[in-house]
Amino acid sequence: MITLYGSPLSGNTHKIRMALAFLDLPWEERLTDATARQSDAFRALTPMAQIPLYVEGDFSLRDSQAILAYLAARHRPGDWDGRTPEERGAIMVWLSHAANEIFNGPALLRAERLFGWSVDRGRAAAVTDRILPVVEAHLAGRDWLVGDRLTIADLAASPYLALAPDGGVDLEQWPAIHAWTRRIAALPAFPAMPGWPAEGAA
Amino acid sequence: MITLYGSPLSGNTHKIRMALAFLDLPWEERLTDATARQSDAFRALTPMAQIPLYVEGDFSLRDSQAILAYLAARHRPGDWDGRTPEERGAIMVWLSHAANEIFNGPALLRAERLFGWSVDRGRAAAVTDRILPVVEAHLAGRDWLVGDRLTIADLAASPYLALAPDGGVDLEQWPAIHAWTRRIAALPAFPAMPGWPAEGAA
Repeated sequence: MITLYGSPLSGNTHKIRMALAFLDLPWEERLTDATARQSDAFRALTPMAQIPLYVEGDFSLRDSQAILAYLAARHRPGDWDGRTPEERGAIMVWLSHAANEIFNGPALLRAERLFGWSVDRGRAAAVTDRILPVVEAHLAGRDWLVGDRLTIADLAASPYLALAPDGGVDLEQWPAIHAWTRRIAALPAFPAMPGWPAEGAA
Repeated sequence: MITLYGSPLSGNTHKIRMALAFLDLPWEERLTDATARQSDAFRALTPMAQIPLYVEGDFSLRDSQAILAYLAARHRPGDWDGRTPEERGAIMVWLSHAANEIFNGPALLRAERLFGWSVDRGRAAAVTDRILPVVEAHLAGRDWLVGDRLTIADLAASPYLALAPDGGVDLEQWPAIHAWTRRIAALPAFPAMPGWPAEGAA
């Protein structure tokens, strides 16, 4: 059985929820509150106390991008992680953006508002202003970030862009991003996430 | 012919230099100065004006982690990028750290000192203090970050840790990291990099 340690409103956790749901794999989700995260047992598996944490038998893995790469290599090799070396590289561009700019921009603006994190708002807003036009321009005329189908690039990059309005970003100004987040939400088995723009929303 | 757009002291560029040298692939390196980076032609290939930029015929790729993933998939599949899905995931943990904490910590401390970048030094120092013990503990008793051989995890994570002294970090306090950076520098065909601790150094 797969255990996913996470938090209901965590966008990083939602990346893995989406992957598991789309793969039709059963999983059990465990809430990690602040106390649990500081425990030695948890720190032994995820030394920076990051969530999500993926555990399956003796195997455990931290970092949302890493868990996506593992799930793709195990369950959708040559598809979710790229059909060619060129696609593999193109997908990795978005995993890096997810780990850096998308997290340090829109995700931090949201974390400040929703969770009261101490955030350098000016820097997070500047990072957001740099990354949004790059994603918008890339998605113009495309349905998916890489190739003609869902890949782990979409799973990694979409949550904190879809949830950016929680941090004060107006997604109506980014129509290609907005449409893409609704396209993902319209996929069969998409797990509900509070704040994610729904298909059919104006 | 492979063209690598980069900068001599860029650690991100050095990730790709190492990969190409270890793969014994010929490449031409082009310096991108500030003017070139702002040109429309360069921005069309790398919208955030990032270096390194990899160009080979009609194919181009930005982001150092992405270029490593591409080179591994093309030239060392199932080896540099992991022999199993579990290894693929474990390698990706370090690519995420390279894109986020290692860049936003030691790389920024160095960029402030060497290049005069405007950096939030307190934040960069705090990120550095969080990531160094994680890498040190992981490398204790191991030669390589994942498995028993060099992978793109080592290529992605090592430059800004090896070059951390340029930013004021004392690597003598992190003996496992220090030994690992010297182990990489001792590999055949390792390209010279000013500031990288040499094999045989005390």
